[in-house]
Amino acid sequence: MTEGRRPRALLVMDPAHFRVQFQEPQLRRLRALAEVAEPLPVTGFGDERVRGLLRRTEVLITSWGCPPLTAEVLADAPELRAVFHCAGTVRPFVTDEVWRRGILVTSAADVNAIAVAEFTLAAVIFAGKKAPFLAQDARRHRDDWSYLERRGELSNRERTVGIVGFSRTGRRVAERLRALEVDVLVADPYADAGEVAAAGGRLVPLPELLRAGDVLTLHVPALPATRHLIGAAELALLRDGATVINTARGSVLDTAALERECGSGRLHAILDVTEPEPLPADSPLYDLPNVMITPHVAGSLGSETRRMSESALDELERYLSGRPPRAAVTADDIAVSA
Amino acid sequence: MTEGRRPRALLVMDPAHFRVQFQEPQLRRLRALAEVAEPLPVTGFGDERVRGLLRRTEVLITSWGCPPLTAEVLADAPELRAVFHCAGTVRPFVTDEVWRRGILVTSAADVNAIAVAEFTLAAVIFAGKKAPFLAQDARRHRDDWSYLERRGELSNRERTVGIVGFSRTGRRVAERLRALEVDVLVADPYADAGEVAAAGGRLVPLPELLRAGDVLTLHVPALPATRHLIGAAELALLRDGATVINTARGSVLDTAALERECGSGRLHAILDVTEPEPLPADSPLYDLPNVMITPHVAGSLGSETRRMSESALDELERYLSGRPPRAAVTADDIAVSA
Repeated sequence: MTEGRRPRALLVMDPAHFRVQFQEPQLRRLRALAEVAEPLPVTGFGDERVRGLLRRTEVLITSWGCPPLTAEVLADAPELRAVFHCAGTVRPFVTDEVWRRGILVTSAADVNAIAVAEFTLAAVIFAGKKAPFLAQDARRHRDDWSYLERRGELSNRERTVGIVGFSRTGRRVAERLRALEVDVLVADPYADAGEVAAAGGRLVPLPELLRAGDVLTLHVPALPATRHLIGAAELALLRDGATVINTARGSVLDTAALERECGSGRLHAILDVTEPEPLPADSPLYDLPNVMITPHVAGSLGSETRRMSESALDELERYLSGRPPRAAVTADDIAVSA
Repeated sequence: MTEGRRPRALLVMDPAHFRVQFQEPQLRRLRALAEVAEPLPVTGFGDERVRGLLRRTEVLITSWGCPPLTAEVLADAPELRAVFHCAGTVRPFVTDEVWRRGILVTSAADVNAIAVAEFTLAAVIFAGKKAPFLAQDARRHRDDWSYLERRGELSNRERTVGIVGFSRTGRRVAERLRALEVDVLVADPYADAGEVAAAGGRLVPLPELLRAGDVLTLHVPALPATRHLIGAAELALLRDGATVINTARGSVLDTAALERECGSGRLHAILDVTEPEPLPADSPLYDLPNVMITPHVAGSLGSETRRMSESALDELERYLSGRPPRAAVTADDIAVSA
């Protein structure tokens, strides 16, 4: 495709992720674009041979498990120009020294959001029908269907879904909810009302969203400012029987407050992330029929993670042909997003 | 809207469904279109006063709970020209005498399929992530996440979804699955390959679909010919770890065969319908972590059922303005569809 210049590249990531994200088609494409040094993958920068390779490396292809690009490591990488990350956040390994050197960093967070948005769509539909909770009722009450009366309306029409955070994922969730006949409200202090409307939602203040929502779904990053964004006061605004979905980060939701509201049976919850994660074995949330907990699986896993390696290869291709990156990350981005 | 002629109409249905399906907006629209006699609703044809009304009735608006339109009832309804049904199948109350008299019958089965297709989409996505089964694992194993390894790949990409039955629901499921990056196979002896392709699927013989499917979802009506369409031999063709979704009718799937395949842990299942329904209290399926059972809630419920009353009012409006019906039912239809 891109004839000509093939920069020297290193793949730096955990071997298990490498095996899933770089199968034959991805490796073939990578080798057509760059001169990739062994070992494949590199797992750390301590090794003398790796340090030798690093000295001549122009491009890093990174993924989960890439060790921090410290000033000391970068001192040995004078030719490094770009880091194409095959996963979401680059926060664990990108240091200030990377920005200081003006190295291009791209992230696959945008395509990572696809899997989360799909999972969230399913959670919203199942919440409308109270399906996970009825399934738990069925285990307990079996052929006595009188439990059906106790879960309230079981419908996905004329309902209101509140999206907290018009992030990559939040926006995609709004767009996917267009396929349903539901009202979509969005709360986000940084979002533009026109962009929210274009995605099929309506931008409102958080308290208004909380009062109106039959289903609340969280899509804000874990930052100091978002810690316990949804606490006791916010949960109290939700109507009886509402469902809280968290596929974002556990810290956004106050676990103790949720325990009280779900323990009383007033609210329902579908939690793919928790704080702490996993919840301790004695957490009362595990036993509640109105709570569904999954072990952080909404994000890209397995074949879904190849969306991200393919996206990183797209970025490499753009870089080689002189086109601007699709998803460059800046120091500022890291401060306000996932 | 339709000025002029307002035919005499009777509403015949269960009062509980009437209250949900005919709220103020629907009643206002109905009264603008027709002269509706009290009682509202009529629940049976035994009453002398109702028989008197029936004699001058041109149009019946029916829903769940309409008693059979027997020859004896119809003998008292010489002016009856049309039955607009606000629910799915008309089989419980439409008799041969209705067809003999050439009475127009319409059904809201098509819009009823929307709720089922939405629920099925959610079930497919959650099946891809094994979410209902991991949620059960979480209840048992709590913070010991080693159970995560035992559920296989957790992904909705590069997977194959097999749709059995290109029915109203099956077609809608195929269309909704376009939003995912999955391969969609359809098996249906009556379907047209071009129409299946237009909906985003590929028409294949059932055995080929069974061998390729990561997720199998059933959308065939309950008929003598479809009884146990998916039995031991068919389930045996599915790959290890596959998920069977049934939101159609319990009789389509051989419960005993499914019990064996799920009891051994080889297959997963999401069952909104069962045979018998509900399953007896001692059914082993209730206890299995790889089985999710909901109490027949995928179809239109609550506010979703107003889609169907609104669709019946659309048909009444078309009838009054001389336009052809959207969803007329014939004696032949009843023999091959739900």
